[in-house]
Amino acid sequence: MNKIEHIGIAVKNLENSNELFSKIFGAPIYKTETVESEGVKTSFFKVGANKIELLEATSEDSPIAKFINIKGEGIHHIAFDVVDIDAEVKRLTNEGFVVLNENPKKGADNKLVVFLHPKTTNGVLIELCQEISLKE
Amino acid sequence: MNKIEHIGIAVKNLENSNELFSKIFGAPIYKTETVESEGVKTSFFKVGANKIELLEATSEDSPIAKFINIKGEGIHHIAFDVVDIDAEVKRLTNEGFVVLNENPKKGADNKLVVFLHPKTTNGVLIELCQEISLKE
Repeated sequence: MNKIEHIGIAVKNLENSNELFSKIFGAPIYKTETVESEGVKTSFFKVGANKIELLEATSEDSPIAKFINIKGEGIHHIAFDVVDIDAEVKRLTNEGFVVLNENPKKGADNKLVVFLHPKTTNGVLIELCQEISLKE
Repeated sequence: MNKIEHIGIAVKNLENSNELFSKIFGAPIYKTETVESEGVKTSFFKVGANKIELLEATSEDSPIAKFINIKGEGIHHIAFDVVDIDAEVKRLTNEGFVVLNENPKKGADNKLVVFLHPKTTNGVLIELCQEISLKE
């Protein structure tokens, strides 16, 4: 794993939270993106070489809506940048970790993503992500 | 804010979690430290330019014990590296954010730290931290 690619934060209202985190970081979001397949609207901030992703649910059965219902707004996941997502999934499943999706799927920000089940990772939802352009 | 300095993860048993996260990151911890004033034992991993800090409570009234009792193990806080912590506290309180400690206190890893109240930051516990050597 190369670095923390981003931290995902579940929010109820993206517009309000964009304004709130703009004040914290002293800079505005640099992009927004809706990922229909995941039921989320997202926005991104840059903090040095890392990103902060805010996530608002687009429907009641979105994973983000379920998360907020149980835990409230807050940090949802950590995403780590990997060079070869297939090799990382193989390595980690061999170590006994459980993945939520074995086959990488298209996430926000032009990434292929795989999530590790938080039950096997101390309650931390970990996302592995790889730039799609590096996957060819 | 320069970068994500570290992400803090609350764990029940530091030894078990050190082993677990060593498998995830493919590398061992590089240091451990007990911060008596905060009631925590900590250990650190490097992931690129960022760090992951695991935190185990050393007593039942430690903030980490209380967090785990309510939310379970998982991501506890995000720490951002700042150049001038006093100036950042002033800027953020002027913006309406509430700090848990106005005067920076000594945290793990040779840092002065201030926490922002999660009620004013979308449920995210944010730590500002500054290297003590840069504070002179």
